[in-house]
Amino acid sequence: MSDVSDWWRTRIIDMEPGRIHLRGHPIEDLIGHRSFAQMIWLMVTGEEISGPRADLFEAALVAAVDHGPQAPSIAAARMATTCGVGLQSAMATGLNMLGDVHGGAGEQALALYHHVDRAGPEGLGLALDTWRAEHGPYLPGFGHRFHTTTDPRAPRLLELVDAVAETGGVPGSYGQIGRAIQADLAREKGKPVPMNIDGATAVIFAELGCPAPLARGFFCLSRSVGILAHSWEQTQQGGRNKGPTPPQYRWTYDGT
Amino acid sequence: MSDVSDWWRTRIIDMEPGRIHLRGHPIEDLIGHRSFAQMIWLMVTGEEISGPRADLFEAALVAAVDHGPQAPSIAAARMATTCGVGLQSAMATGLNMLGDVHGGAGEQALALYHHVDRAGPEGLGLALDTWRAEHGPYLPGFGHRFHTTTDPRAPRLLELVDAVAETGGVPGSYGQIGRAIQADLAREKGKPVPMNIDGATAVIFAELGCPAPLARGFFCLSRSVGILAHSWEQTQQGGRNKGPTPPQYRWTYDGT
Amino acid sequence: MSDVSDWWRTRIIDMEPGRIHLRGHPIEDLIGHRSFAQMIWLMVTGEEISGPRADLFEAALVAAVDHGPQAPSIAAARMATTCGVGLQSAMATGLNMLGDVHGGAGEQALALYHHVDRAGPEGLGLALDTWRAEHGPYLPGFGHRFHTTTDPRAPRLLELVDAVAETGGVPGSYGQIGRAIQADLAREKGKPVPMNIDGATAVIFAELGCPAPLARGFFCLSRSVGILAHSWEQTQQGGRNKGPTPPQYRWTYDGT
Amino acid sequence: MSDVSDWWRTRIIDMEPGRIHLRGHPIEDLIGHRSFAQMIWLMVTGEEISGPRADLFEAALVAAVDHGPQAPSIAAARMATTCGVGLQSAMATGLNMLGDVHGGAGEQALALYHHVDRAGPEGLGLALDTWRAEHGPYLPGFGHRFHTTTDPRAPRLLELVDAVAETGGVPGSYGQIGRAIQADLAREKGKPVPMNIDGATAVIFAELGCPAPLARGFFCLSRSVGILAHSWEQTQQGGRNKGPTPPQYRWTYDGT
Repeated sequence: MSDVSDWWRTRIIDMEPGRIHLRGHPIEDLIGHRSFAQMIWLMVTGEEISGPRADLFEAALVAAVDHGPQAPSIAAARMATTCGVGLQSAMATGLNMLGDVHGGAGEQALALYHHVDRAGPEGLGLALDTWRAEHGPYLPGFGHRFHTTTDPRAPRLLELVDAVAETGGVPGSYGQIGRAIQADLAREKGKPVPMNIDGATAVIFAELGCPAPLARGFFCLSRSVGILAHSWEQTQQGGRNKGPTPPQYRWTYDGT
Repeated sequence: MSDVSDWWRTRIIDMEPGRIHLRGHPIEDLIGHRSFAQMIWLMVTGEEISGPRADLFEAALVAAVDHGPQAPSIAAARMATTCGVGLQSAMATGLNMLGDVHGGAGEQALALYHHVDRAGPEGLGLALDTWRAEHGPYLPGFGHRFHTTTDPRAPRLLELVDAVAETGGVPGSYGQIGRAIQADLAREKGKPVPMNIDGATAVIFAELGCPAPLARGFFCLSRSVGILAHSWEQTQQGGRNKGPTPPQYRWTYDGT
Repeated sequence: MSDVSDWWRTRIIDMEPGRIHLRGHPIEDLIGHRSFAQMIWLMVTGEEISGPRADLFEAALVAAVDHGPQAPSIAAARMATTCGVGLQSAMATGLNMLGDVHGGAGEQALALYHHVDRAGPEGLGLALDTWRAEHGPYLPGFGHRFHTTTDPRAPRLLELVDAVAETGGVPGSYGQIGRAIQADLAREKGKPVPMNIDGATAVIFAELGCPAPLARGFFCLSRSVGILAHSWEQTQQGGRNKGPTPPQYRWTYDGT
Repeated sequence: MSDVSDWWRTRIIDMEPGRIHLRGHPIEDLIGHRSFAQMIWLMVTGEEISGPRADLFEAALVAAVDHGPQAPSIAAARMATTCGVGLQSAMATGLNMLGDVHGGAGEQALALYHHVDRAGPEGLGLALDTWRAEHGPYLPGFGHRFHTTTDPRAPRLLELVDAVAETGGVPGSYGQIGRAIQADLAREKGKPVPMNIDGATAVIFAELGCPAPLARGFFCLSRSVGILAHSWEQTQQGGRNKGPTPPQYRWTYDGT
């Protein structure tokens, strides 16, 4: 032990030659005994997850893997693979774009749910007012510029939450909070503003007791799957220095 | 359909407002019915994986999640979180380092196995000679600078491969190839040069029929878990502009 | 012209086969007639810079190129080059860390100066109070955890600003604002809290009429030089998977 | 001095509180006395550059700053700025794409020139044959898919090289090599295959005595300017999650 060894401290991994312990478990006891999703939860939170709670976590990870090459992260990763860089570099390119706007809505929705939860069952209206005073009119996790009527991922995820809540696997209170916000928004706008993928995965992460910033981390893991799938497909399609539009269109010069 | 729509082509995702199909399946049929690992395989390869084959894939993903903060990718991701960037950016920093040296050995080991496989059971010695003539003396997937005697992940993964091969779930031939190379190396060096994590996951990927470059992609997904776990832990530990060593050491100036 | 061509619009570049115009100038008229620094200013702001104003801009770019391998961006770039990735990837790794904490102080200092400037010469104390009420007690651009007495770059840069201000090349008012804040801090703390590199380059950028976010952009260009120099030096030194500390130290396991 | 201090070694920077030396010079002696381009050369190579040689280096840096938003690096950086990430992150996104295909031609052209140079004046034909036997038929630095007749940057850069060579500032032999390859290609193809930006900047870097991999590094610094200019312009244009094509086009689903 020394000041140098102490500079890097972790509860995640302990290691000697021939021996790797992750979160207190010999790696050979984890291999073959944890699903990949369970391993993600264990590594990141330090706690075990199993049964219906693990199923919910798997569902949230499955739901967000891809939304197609119109998403800047996917398009950029595909373009990167045509630039002569490694697959890891193409993946990093896509992942690096999952910022506050492109990948942050789940984290924000989770923070919103926590905020509403603290206000209690009677306090929804006031809670939304105070949220908007600080963060602006848009409520994260609701509405979708493409799936204007229904984001097909959200009702399916809520259905799974309900099923687990019925058997006591999760409290279910965040599913209720999400639906209450959805109902409030519909009243306010006079039309449905349906919960989207970020709002629905945030319900799951909230039910599982996850702090808000981790929602972004988990989303990043999930979307990395689509990023890899598209990067790999583009590698097979080939191309060199693939631009965003067919070359004959180029761009509009706006100068004088 | 137009030249513009055709500029981006994919077999992965089809979408209309309110409808998302991934690899031909409505997303709501996948959510709750596929594990995260199964979804990874489906998205990337276009094929389903289930049963013992899916278990092997889960095992390979679980095995490679972390090797500690001495790995440059983990250290860099931790440092990044102290620089005022988002979690996605810290993760991209780590992922971006998984290049030919740090993350490429699995891909190279898989290519080596394919090369040995093409040579047939009698041709191992010659196959290793021709491999080395092109790629140099080092055989990817064997030996470890830290786990000099045993990489504890490898025998456990091989054990799982054997169990599945016995029931016909996978051919098992790549497990044999890996072990044959290991034995050959031990003979040559006069001491064990044990299969490492990259060699062992490459056995699984080979048994599952995966092309070599995907081994790197899957490794990137796997190690992203450790990268996220360490980034998140560092966020909780705090720090600003964390350097690689305690500040009192700085560096040695080598100039004149 | 079409909706597709219009999707990408720019005032920066106009192009036909055999013809490239940047900011309205044929590229062949710029090559050999603009310094690199002048070209940076022209490309980014759309305006020409020359004479003593260009000299100040060069000085700001020169001053911030490097602060050594204890900086996480430099260390990470050096580690990346040992991981088998291209030089561009190592550089991106370093650059990607120049976030709010590591690379954002110049932008914040410029915003602070603009804030103080709007308050007018009598309003310094109040301006600092309102700034701190929103942003916290720390004033960006002042104090340095390593150069506790003097950051040698700051007085030299201010000296150059003064010289140009005397001849009317720049107003000089931001140099005064910076010094007034410095004096106020010294009074408050009872000891010097000297202007640092970020505070001094922000003075120059403010004198040149640059919006705050560009201070970060220019810092990124400047520090990219050190990142490249260190990446290249590491390439020549060699190494594989270089960790943050010598391997014998590893890390401290903090778990139970 | 200790094993820890020695872990990071550099000839670039020496530092104490209040004192920063870069390549042996106090930073305050460099600020105001070196242009940004001179500082780049000093930091990266450890040597001074001045006069006509510095002018050539400036010209090479100026020439390659931008080639418009059809380039994947520029498009990706612009998309990134609409995703809620910092300017440094958008810049890293673009920079990270300058791999072997998108940013590596200058490095390859420089290697080609060195290869031809070693063959001597009589050996051009044979040198091109041996190059192609190893690297394939395409000669880096010649031909352009967009500027099919002339890349306007190349003749201008060669003109500057000639002018400096006449006064003995550089040998001029690499300008001759570049033109000899160009002439050979024209003979072979029966039409001009004009030197492009990468071929022309490689001439300058070769004349200045620069090793091949640095051509990529310098290109990265140069193109970072366009990446910043476009990122900043996009920030001002606004947009959220900007996709590669207008949203009404999406993509073509290629599955069954």
